[in-house]
Amino acid sequence: MAQVSFIAIDWGTSSFRLWALAADGSVVAATDGPFGMSRLKRGDFGNVLEENLAKLNIDPNVPVIICGMAGAKQGWCEAPYLQVPTRLDAMGMQAVKVQGIDRDIHILPGAKQILPANVMRGEETQIAGFLHHCPDFEGTVCLPGTHSKWVRVSDKSIQDFETCMTGEQFAFFSQQSVLSHSMLVDGWCDESFDRAILSATTEPHTVPCKLFAIRAEMLIGEQSSAKARSRLSGLLIGQELVATKPYWRANEVVLIGATPLCKLYIQALEILGVKAKALDSTTMTLLGLCAAHKFHNGVGISNHA
Amino acid sequence: MAQVSFIAIDWGTSSFRLWALAADGSVVAATDGPFGMSRLKRGDFGNVLEENLAKLNIDPNVPVIICGMAGAKQGWCEAPYLQVPTRLDAMGMQAVKVQGIDRDIHILPGAKQILPANVMRGEETQIAGFLHHCPDFEGTVCLPGTHSKWVRVSDKSIQDFETCMTGEQFAFFSQQSVLSHSMLVDGWCDESFDRAILSATTEPHTVPCKLFAIRAEMLIGEQSSAKARSRLSGLLIGQELVATKPYWRANEVVLIGATPLCKLYIQALEILGVKAKALDSTTMTLLGLCAAHKFHNGVGISNHA
Repeated sequence: MAQVSFIAIDWGTSSFRLWALAADGSVVAATDGPFGMSRLKRGDFGNVLEENLAKLNIDPNVPVIICGMAGAKQGWCEAPYLQVPTRLDAMGMQAVKVQGIDRDIHILPGAKQILPANVMRGEETQIAGFLHHCPDFEGTVCLPGTHSKWVRVSDKSIQDFETCMTGEQFAFFSQQSVLSHSMLVDGWCDESFDRAILSATTEPHTVPCKLFAIRAEMLIGEQSSAKARSRLSGLLIGQELVATKPYWRANEVVLIGATPLCKLYIQALEILGVKAKALDSTTMTLLGLCAAHKFHNGVGISNHA
Repeated sequence: MAQVSFIAIDWGTSSFRLWALAADGSVVAATDGPFGMSRLKRGDFGNVLEENLAKLNIDPNVPVIICGMAGAKQGWCEAPYLQVPTRLDAMGMQAVKVQGIDRDIHILPGAKQILPANVMRGEETQIAGFLHHCPDFEGTVCLPGTHSKWVRVSDKSIQDFETCMTGEQFAFFSQQSVLSHSMLVDGWCDESFDRAILSATTEPHTVPCKLFAIRAEMLIGEQSSAKARSRLSGLLIGQELVATKPYWRANEVVLIGATPLCKLYIQALEILGVKAKALDSTTMTLLGLCAAHKFHNGVGISNHA
C-alpha cells in the first residue's frame, strides 16, 4: 500500500465519503457511509471521523481536508461562506481549522451570494476541481441534483449562481405525492421525457396544471409508470431550464454530477439547441479537495518559513 | 330531536364527515373522524359507516347519500365519473347503489375531463350545492385546497376545469423540504405574501429559483419564519394563478373552501385586479348532497309510480 499523505472528505447532509490519498493525489483507500450532517450532533463528528480513519489504519499525524455541510452553522465547525464573485484557487487558504483536536483537520468554506440570496456547500469544491482541470474555462457549470446549481464561471472565479430544488421536488412528487400512485413500477420513456421538456419550455406557465394531469391520465385512460415518471422528470427539469435560461443561453455548459442525471440534462439541453458535456462529480470533488489541501499546505509552509 | 330523514356523508381521502338531516335539510346531528379512504380496505367502509350511524342512533331504514373518494376505483364502490361538459342538477340520478347491504346507500359520481385529462371527486357536489343556491351563475368557481380546482360553470354545467397541486406542494415545502428549517415558528406576514404574489405573477419563470432563496435568505441574513412561510405561500398561489389565468381573467370568480384559505385567494386575486367572493365549503357540500338526495328520491318515486 502506498503511503497515505492526507485524507479528503466530502461530508454532506446525508452522506460521508472519505478517501485516503498519496502525495500525488492517487487514491490509496476509501470508505463511505450514511453519516451525514442531518444525523449527527456537533459532538459526534470527531468520533465518526476517527472511527472511519481507524478502519483504514490511518496514523494520527495524517492531516484531513473536508468539504460540504460539515462546515455549516449546524455542522461540525462553521467555515464562513466566501462571497461571490470569488476566486476558487485560494479556497484552501480560507479553510477553518477544527479546534480542540490533536489531528490537523481543516474544513473548506462554502460560497454565498447576497442578491439574489443563495448559498452552496460542497459544489464550490467540485468547481474548484474543475478549474484545476481547465483553468481557463469561461462559461456555465451546472451541478444537477437535489438542489441543482447553475454557476457562471469566469476569470477563475464563481461570478454568480442560481439554485433549483428540482431533485428534492422530483423525489417528493414521485415517492410521496398523489402522483406516486401513477409510478409504482420502474421504467423510463425517452419520448415522454422529450415531450415534457418541450412542453415545459414552450409553455412554462402550464406546468403546475400538467403535474396533476399525470395522475388524471392514468385514472381515465392508459398511462404506464414509465411514461408518468419520465413526464414528471421532463416537466421539472424543463421548468428548471426556463428559470436558468440566462445561464445556458449563450454560454458553454459543463455538467458535473452523477452520470445518469447528467445524461438527462444533456438530452434536455439538446432539445433547446444547447450542447453540453458531462464530468464525473466524484472526480471533481477529489480534484478540488486535493488542490485545496496543496494550496493550504503550501501557504502553511511559506507562513512558517 | 327532529326526525332524521336521511344521512349525508362527505367521504374523502383522509376524512369522513357525516350529517343526519331532517326532511327540510336542517342538521339534526353530526359526527366526523379520520376514517378516510386512504386508511380503509374495501371491506371496512360498511362497518365504519354503521358504527358511526349507531353512535347517533340512526334507524336501519334511513337512507344514505355519499360524495367523495368512497366512489373511487380504490374506494368502497366505484361511481363512474360524469364526463364534462355535464349538468349537475341531475347528478343524483347517476348515483350508484351500494350492493349487498340492507340499508339504502348511494354514492355520487365524480367528474372527468378527457383533454386535458382531469378528475374531481367531491368538488362536483360542492358546485352542485352552489348551483342549487345560484342556479343562473355563469363564471368560474375556484375550490382552493390540497388539489385546487378551477371550474368554468355555465348553463348549469361544469364546462371544463384545471387542477393545481398547490396545497400538497405547500405542505411538502413548509413541513418536509429544506425550506422547512426556515419556518419552524408560527406566524404570517401579509406584506411578504403580497410581494410574492406580485413577483410570481409578473416573473413566473423565476419561481423555481425563488423557492430555494427563501432558505438562503435566512442563512445569510435575517428572515423570520412568518416572512418565509408567507413568501412560500405567495409564490405557490401566484404560480397557480398564472397557470389558471384563462379561468379568472374575464369571469366572475366564486371561491368555495375553508375561510382562511379563501381569504388568501381573495387577497391574491385583488392584487391582480380581480374581485372574488367566498362561500363556505361545508355549507355547499351539504346543499349538494341534499339536492342530489332529493333528485335521486324524486326520480326513484316516479320510477316506481
